[in-house]
Amino acid sequence: MFTFRPIGYVHTPYKETSSIPRGLGAKHEAEGELEILRAFEPGLADIEGFSHLFVIWAFDRAEGYDLIAHPPTDEKRPHGVFSTRSPRRPNPIALTVVELLRREGNSLHVRGVDMLDGTPILDINSLRKKVPISATQSAAV
Amino acid sequence: MFTFRPIGYVHTPYKETSSIPRGLGAKHEAEGELEILRAFEPGLADIEGFSHLFVIWAFDRAEGYDLIAHPPTDEKRPHGVFSTRSPRRPNPIALTVVELLRREGNSLHVRGVDMLDGTPILDINSLRKKVPISATQSAAV
Repeated sequence: MFTFRPIGYVHTPYKETSSIPRGLGAKHEAEGELEILRAFEPGLADIEGFSHLFVIWAFDRAEGYDLIAHPPTDEKRPHGVFSTRSPRRPNPIALTVVELLRREGNSLHVRGVDMLDGTPILDINSLRKKVPISATQSAAV
Repeated sequence: MFTFRPIGYVHTPYKETSSIPRGLGAKHEAEGELEILRAFEPGLADIEGFSHLFVIWAFDRAEGYDLIAHPPTDEKRPHGVFSTRSPRRPNPIALTVVELLRREGNSLHVRGVDMLDGTPILDINSLRKKVPISATQSAAV
């Protein structure tokens, strides 16, 4: 078992799940902010040089899991959960690629958020190159 | 705090950290196997249709963290940990993109592993499109 703590929280326009564009081809152009806890701010050094970030975050409002999921774009045909972005997964971890717009201290302003407002961030990986796939187009359904 | 459990383990040729190619431009062509626990095997349904997988895994042999890291390609200049792939991060989570070669039951044969043998897997996300960046070229240094 592994225990992880939030390194920060995401601020997004989405207060409820139903307002987040879902499914294959959904566009995620919303801007948001990754507010990193002050204790971890030194770890952001050099991040301004990157165009995109892989944000690893927790589905903190998901409970339980299903191995077979019914994604919004293909509700008639069930899919294995690892072929979907369902929040009801064995470990409620998610991955979103966002575009880094600018940094202000411990705050990263980004484009392409698809999380609920207040979502805890677990880790950030930096991307040097442009990403031709959006995070939300990356998963199957 | 979030508690996650392994959904499986990675089999790779790498028994020790020093044998894993490191740093910017390192090539990760090694083949390996993602052995998913039998209890989670139904969640692999449909995964054969994908070319690549995002594997989220735990640095289970890392202890502690540093906010400033000294990556192998640029040891003279320290970097913020979120601009590196250092295992000594606030949450020891890692991300690798691998190419899915074939599935045999609960075992996924893949190319592009860069984990130590026996590394615990936390989650898998499927990728429909070819990924033009390798996982290990994705991070800065």
